[in-house]
Amino acid sequence: VPVTEPAPSGRPARSWVPGAAGSLFDADNLPYAVAGPGPLAGHVLTRLGDYLLDLAAAAHGSRSDLSGLLAGGSLNPLMAAGPPVWADLRAWLTDLVTDPGHRSGLSLLPVDEVPLRLPFEVADFVDFYASEHHATNVGRILRPDGEALAPNWKHLPVGYHGRAGSVVVSGTPVRRPSGQRLGQQGTPVFGPTERLDLEAELGFVVGRDVPEGRVATSEVGVTVFGVVGLNDWSARDIQAWEYVPLGPHLGKSFATSISAWVTPLAALEHARLPLPVQDPPVLPYLRERGATTYDVEVEVEVAGEVVARTPYAAMYWSPAQMLAHLTVNGAPLRVGDLLGSGTISGPERHQRGSLLELSWGGREPWTAGGRQRTFLEDGDEVVLRPTAPGALGRIALGEVRGTVVAGDAP
Amino acid sequence: VPVTEPAPSGRPARSWVPGAAGSLFDADNLPYAVAGPGPLAGHVLTRLGDYLLDLAAAAHGSRSDLSGLLAGGSLNPLMAAGPPVWADLRAWLTDLVTDPGHRSGLSLLPVDEVPLRLPFEVADFVDFYASEHHATNVGRILRPDGEALAPNWKHLPVGYHGRAGSVVVSGTPVRRPSGQRLGQQGTPVFGPTERLDLEAELGFVVGRDVPEGRVATSEVGVTVFGVVGLNDWSARDIQAWEYVPLGPHLGKSFATSISAWVTPLAALEHARLPLPVQDPPVLPYLRERGATTYDVEVEVEVAGEVVARTPYAAMYWSPAQMLAHLTVNGAPLRVGDLLGSGTISGPERHQRGSLLELSWGGREPWTAGGRQRTFLEDGDEVVLRPTAPGALGRIALGEVRGTVVAGDAP
Repeated sequence: VPVTEPAPSGRPARSWVPGAAGSLFDADNLPYAVAGPGPLAGHVLTRLGDYLLDLAAAAHGSRSDLSGLLAGGSLNPLMAAGPPVWADLRAWLTDLVTDPGHRSGLSLLPVDEVPLRLPFEVADFVDFYASEHHATNVGRILRPDGEALAPNWKHLPVGYHGRAGSVVVSGTPVRRPSGQRLGQQGTPVFGPTERLDLEAELGFVVGRDVPEGRVATSEVGVTVFGVVGLNDWSARDIQAWEYVPLGPHLGKSFATSISAWVTPLAALEHARLPLPVQDPPVLPYLRERGATTYDVEVEVEVAGEVVARTPYAAMYWSPAQMLAHLTVNGAPLRVGDLLGSGTISGPERHQRGSLLELSWGGREPWTAGGRQRTFLEDGDEVVLRPTAPGALGRIALGEVRGTVVAGDAP
Repeated sequence: VPVTEPAPSGRPARSWVPGAAGSLFDADNLPYAVAGPGPLAGHVLTRLGDYLLDLAAAAHGSRSDLSGLLAGGSLNPLMAAGPPVWADLRAWLTDLVTDPGHRSGLSLLPVDEVPLRLPFEVADFVDFYASEHHATNVGRILRPDGEALAPNWKHLPVGYHGRAGSVVVSGTPVRRPSGQRLGQQGTPVFGPTERLDLEAELGFVVGRDVPEGRVATSEVGVTVFGVVGLNDWSARDIQAWEYVPLGPHLGKSFATSISAWVTPLAALEHARLPLPVQDPPVLPYLRERGATTYDVEVEVEVAGEVVARTPYAAMYWSPAQMLAHLTVNGAPLRVGDLLGSGTISGPERHQRGSLLELSWGGREPWTAGGRQRTFLEDGDEVVLRPTAPGALGRIALGEVRGTVVAGDAP
C-alpha cells in the first residue's frame, strides 16, 4: 500500500531495559498507564519488555516540571498539558530508556506486580460505526430484506453516544446483563441476555478541551492524545428489541472495556496508511489528505481460541473524520472524550470483529475447544490484542481482557 | 385525579422574606443554584421571592457541618452527602426562612445581582421519549405510512444517551448548528440547520452513586436529588438524515439547556399524581404503586409569545420507571447523572412541547407577532417556565432561557 506522506525519519535506539529490545514494548512504543491501589497509586507508568517504569519517580528531581502531571491519579492532567508537553515527555522518556547511562538511577518493576486502573476519566463516549464490512454484515443479518447500508452511511460517519460511566478497565469481570427481549409469543420477556457479544474496536482519547467544537480533520494530531483497545460488549437480543427509533441503549450500556494502556499517537507514526477510497466523495469538512488511518490488527481471542484477526486499515472512516464530524455542529470536546471506532471487520470471514458476524446472526456456529459456539457463555474470557508496525518492529497497543460472569437466575 | 398516597401533612409557615409569601418562591419551594463568577462564586444559593440567600454564608458558624457542602463549586458534594443530609438541610433552611428570629443574621441579595452557573457537573445524560402524545405525533409526522409507535414503545421507556459536555446553563446563547441534511437532489448538503427546534422537558438529577445499577422503582426518592427545566434543542433536518440506524446524534449534541435552579423532590410532594393507566401491563421491574408522577406544567414561550402549556402529568412513563429501566442491565449511576423526560406533550394542540409538533412538520405554520412561523429564527428567545402545586401555593421550578444566535454563513 503506498504511503503518500513520508514516514518520520527518527527511529529511536533500542532500549537497554532487559528483554525490551525486539519485544512488543521496545523504545518505539512507550505507552502510558496509571497504577491502581498500592504504593504507586495514581502514578503514570510506561512499559518496556516485561517491566514497568514509574514515571512520577523517574521525573522526581530532574524533571520536576513534569512530575506533578505524572502523579495526578489519571492521565487527564498530562493530556490537558497539551501536545508540546506530550512531545517533550516522550523525548525525555526515549532518552531515559535508550541511554544506558540512566540505568542506575531507575527502578524497574515486573509488570505483574502493579495493578492498573482506568487510565483516564472518561468525559463523553461516542461510538462510531466506521467499518463498511461490519455495517454491511450487520445490515444483511438484521435487515435481510432491505439495503444493507442506510442512505447516509457513505456520507457521514454514523455514531451515537454511549455511557461514559460504564467504561471499565481491562480485567474487570463483565456480568451478563438482564433486560427485555422479544419472546417467541411476540411479547417481551425479561431475563439474562442469550446473545452476549463482543465488539473489537479501537478507542481514540481526546486530550484537549475545544469549547466551540468544529475541529478540522487536520487537527487530529493536536487533539487526540492516544489510542486504547476497546471491547464494546453488546447484548444483541436486548439491542434488537429496543433500538428503534432512538438507537442502542441498554444493549450496550452495561459495560465497555478499554485497555489500561494508552498508546500515544506518536508511537503509531510508522503505522500510518491512507484510507481506502471513499466513493461518493465526502463533503468538504470531511476531506483529508495523506496517510490518515493506521495499520493496526486486532487479534480476538475467546475462551483461549483466536477467532479473528481484524484489520483497522480496512475501516471506511478515519479517526480525523470521526472527530471532524462529531464537532462540526459546535459540540464541545473535553479532555477525556473517548471515540470508539465501531467494530473492526475486514472482508474475510476470519476478519469479523463480532460474534454476531462470526456466527452470522447465530445461524452459523463456530467451533472452540471442539464445541459448537455462537455467542458468549458464562466463564468465557475475551482478549483483544491490537498490534501495529512501530519504528523498530511490531508494537503492542493496549490489550483488553474481560471474563463473562453469570447474571441473575433467569 | 385521585391521589392514592396521602399527601405529606407538613406545610411550612410562609416566609418572612419580603415579597416571598404567596409568590412562586415561598418557603415551600427552596430550590438550589450555584453562584457564578463574583464574590459568591461556587456558593450554593436558595431563592425566596425576588431575593437570594447565600447558604454557605448562612451555615457559617451555626452549621459548620454543612458549610463545606454549600461552597463546593457545584451541587455535587451536597448531592453525594445523601438523602439524610438533603432532608436535614431543607429542615434547617425552612426554619431559617420562616422564623423571623433569624432575620437579623441573614443577608439577602436581589436575584439579578448574582450570576448563576451550571448547577452540577453532569456525569451521563440520558434523554427519554416518555410522552405518548409526543411519540405518536412524531411518528405520524415522520413516518406517516407506518405505525406511529414502535412495537417496543409501551413495554419500555425508550431512551438514548445524549452529550453531557453540551449541557449548558439557562441564559447561554445557542448558536444555530451546521451539519448535513438531505438536499432536494437526494444528496446531502451542508449548512446551518433550517429546522431548529426546542423540546420542553424536565430533567431528573441523580444524587447517588450506584455502581451496580439495578435501582428499584421504589428507590427513586433516595436516588433522585431534584428536578430541572430542560430544553433539548434539536436540528430536525440534521436529525432526520443521520438517525437511522443508531439514533439522534449531531441533531441534538450541539446544546442542551437546563435551568440554573434545581428543585428538590421534597418540594414536589404536593404535586404527586398517579400515572395514566399503562396498558399492556409492564414487566415486574417497571411496576410501581401510588402517586409516582408530578403535576408540573411547562409554559413554552418563543419570541415573547406563549405557544404552548405542556402537562407533565400526561407522560406515559414515570421518573422511577426511567430510572429502573436505565439501570436494570447493571449500568452504574453516578452523582450528576441527568435523565431527561423527553418532550412533554399533551393531547391538545396547545399542549405540544416542540415546534415540530406545533407546526406539524413545518406544514402548519403558527403565528407569533403577526407573522407566520414554523421553526426557530435567529434572535428568537425561548423560555420554558415549569410550575407545580406546592404546599403553600404554586411553586416555580427552574426556568430555562436561551436565545438563538446565527451560525456560519450558508
